[in-house]
Amino acid sequence: MTWLDLPPDTGFGLDNLPYGIFSTPGTSARTGVRVGDAVLDLTGISGDDVHATGTLNAFMARGPGAWAELRADLIRWLTEDAHRGTVERHLHRLDDVSLHLPIEVADYVDFYSSEQHAENVGRIFRPGSDPLPPNWKHLPIGYHGRAGTVAVSGTPVHRPQGQRKGPDDAAPVFGPSTRLDIEAELGFVVGAPSARPVPVGAFAEHVFGVCLLNDWSARDLQAWEYVPLGPFLGKSFLTSISPWVVPLAALEAARVSPPPRDPRPLPYLSDDGPWGLDITLDVRLNGQTVSRPPAAGLYWTAAQQLAHLTVNGATLRTGDLYGSGTVSGSEPDQRGSLLELSWGGTEPLRLADGSTRTFLEDGDEATITATAPGADGGRICFGEVTGTVLAARQDVSPSRGSGPGRS
Amino acid sequence: MTWLDLPPDTGFGLDNLPYGIFSTPGTSARTGVRVGDAVLDLTGISGDDVHATGTLNAFMARGPGAWAELRADLIRWLTEDAHRGTVERHLHRLDDVSLHLPIEVADYVDFYSSEQHAENVGRIFRPGSDPLPPNWKHLPIGYHGRAGTVAVSGTPVHRPQGQRKGPDDAAPVFGPSTRLDIEAELGFVVGAPSARPVPVGAFAEHVFGVCLLNDWSARDLQAWEYVPLGPFLGKSFLTSISPWVVPLAALEAARVSPPPRDPRPLPYLSDDGPWGLDITLDVRLNGQTVSRPPAAGLYWTAAQQLAHLTVNGATLRTGDLYGSGTVSGSEPDQRGSLLELSWGGTEPLRLADGSTRTFLEDGDEATITATAPGADGGRICFGEVTGTVLAARQDVSPSRGSGPGRS
Repeated sequence: MTWLDLPPDTGFGLDNLPYGIFSTPGTSARTGVRVGDAVLDLTGISGDDVHATGTLNAFMARGPGAWAELRADLIRWLTEDAHRGTVERHLHRLDDVSLHLPIEVADYVDFYSSEQHAENVGRIFRPGSDPLPPNWKHLPIGYHGRAGTVAVSGTPVHRPQGQRKGPDDAAPVFGPSTRLDIEAELGFVVGAPSARPVPVGAFAEHVFGVCLLNDWSARDLQAWEYVPLGPFLGKSFLTSISPWVVPLAALEAARVSPPPRDPRPLPYLSDDGPWGLDITLDVRLNGQTVSRPPAAGLYWTAAQQLAHLTVNGATLRTGDLYGSGTVSGSEPDQRGSLLELSWGGTEPLRLADGSTRTFLEDGDEATITATAPGADGGRICFGEVTGTVLAARQDVSPSRGSGPGRS
Repeated sequence: MTWLDLPPDTGFGLDNLPYGIFSTPGTSARTGVRVGDAVLDLTGISGDDVHATGTLNAFMARGPGAWAELRADLIRWLTEDAHRGTVERHLHRLDDVSLHLPIEVADYVDFYSSEQHAENVGRIFRPGSDPLPPNWKHLPIGYHGRAGTVAVSGTPVHRPQGQRKGPDDAAPVFGPSTRLDIEAELGFVVGAPSARPVPVGAFAEHVFGVCLLNDWSARDLQAWEYVPLGPFLGKSFLTSISPWVVPLAALEAARVSPPPRDPRPLPYLSDDGPWGLDITLDVRLNGQTVSRPPAAGLYWTAAQQLAHLTVNGATLRTGDLYGSGTVSGSEPDQRGSLLELSWGGTEPLRLADGSTRTFLEDGDEATITATAPGADGGRICFGEVTGTVLAARQDVSPSRGSGPGRS
């Protein structure tokens, strides 16, 4: 039992203890652990310089033994009265700190592992044909995204500009995206590197923890560009993650069996343990919940995704980040994107203020939170990933140019 | 005129001066400049610690003013007799040094900008339909690759394993790729970062230089996985680059007008200057030249690629690397991949030793070199990117697994 005075049902109790990077005015960014509505300064309490680097990478690179050891220390510090005085000197009120990008992202990969999401997208984009591509149930489809534009929650999203071409347009036009969207996902953070393929059963030896991820998407740019090499500018302008990385050890009570797979996956993808995760996301638009996507239903688990990602010999680095893919459930109010919630823009959402939305408008704020079962009937919270849409920047306009082109 | 005794037609004269990272036995990796068959140690001659970091990134981040200044210094040091004694103390014979990955790669993007290559691939994969997708002449198609598996020339390529499914197979099978290929490309290295879109005309303010790039590709893995989100495991196991980065300033004499573009690109892609590059690649298989792809014919220039990559607001970091896409010319002996050279495996190449090749066999060595016009009728060489194929690793085998799967 902790001596801390934690808010009831905090979601940030001793069964959680997520890691983040914080600063207070005039101090440099360092590692902290959230407990209740406070942040414990690990540089102060541990005296270990690994927590003073401004990202979690150096600590994550130490591997699962070090992760377990620090977690045990944290629980001892927060439960034994002998440590109370010391710990209290290193606690900051959450309201007093700024939160930063928790990891230095090495490579960023995004998967596509919700069957309901993939089916919805297939029905919307390719009506009349099989909604799932033939490979979908044989492998976790994924692709690399832009690591350099992964940013922490709160970073505003400037409406991206680019080319789009409607089905009836003679030629593409350039301008701000008119179909700016969110994708509600889980993000998995690789801590321990690997030079070798990581079998499904070795998942927890390499993945440090889980955050929330919003893979902002410009559907009109994406639709025009993505054949044949996949999404590029429709995604690369910004990907937002929550500031707290929930350690895998905090999610033991959330582990569930994934849905049955048919056909049976190839042996390298067979399940060594139930790495389905009973995490329920909550998607809010301007403060109003519009969806509650259930991650427990994801067809491919994060353990299978990692096994697939590395089976060809691709190495892992500390700081590699991969997204689950948009989480959508089978119910209309469990869909993880506006593309699905408005069914390709044909069924506008009605908000509490009387307005309607198909895609995001300038000024809109999109927020994703999530909860999971914790130890002893408690719950684990993930904090939030949020962002507000700003108008397109005026750096590039259709009229900019240099007189007559050479071509 | 240099006081150095340079080999005739060296390709590494004072009009080139490419940068790389080298070490000698027992010393740490540092920045060097290749001149003839020697390497000038920049830490020694300049006394600037920026060259002792083991990558070019810190120097590249200083921007084009610093690049021009050092280039002017180098030419002065290598031409004025007063510096001869000092310089000679910091020269190493090329044979005495090890060469390392020259840059810390931030994000890696691969384009698809050779019309001949894209047409060949379209004809091979989708016979009977339009070989170019509808977007191809409107934008430089690209996608993100894996930065963490970019390696320096000489790194062996383990034959990747993965899923493949032939058109007549009932289900995918797992095993070593049977269609391992090369892609002969130019690599462009971003030096100066940017938080804003980079117009075509600002290319040289951000791109530091050019290297050679082999985008090793497993065609069977790629064919099965790439719809709808693009190539992933078919590419992510290894991308090799040459150890020398030729500064953009060395390529002034190689600049040519790109091919005419029809339809005329949107204004943000209109050409501000002729950034076509008259660089001729040479592809050797086990020492025998099998192709000479001409980069001058690329439909989209590297300046247009960079403008496209950033137009949506995607930021640039020092160390960002992007590939031109496979370079293929209009002649059969100008094709930059075995996929094209063997026309999808249907027309095997005959090698000088009497053997034939469709795709790479274990033990094969693939090497790409390149030359461009230099100042005063000379020529610029790029060194080489080479690699030998090793048998698939036995980390993962189809029979590995964990007994009956849960699914």
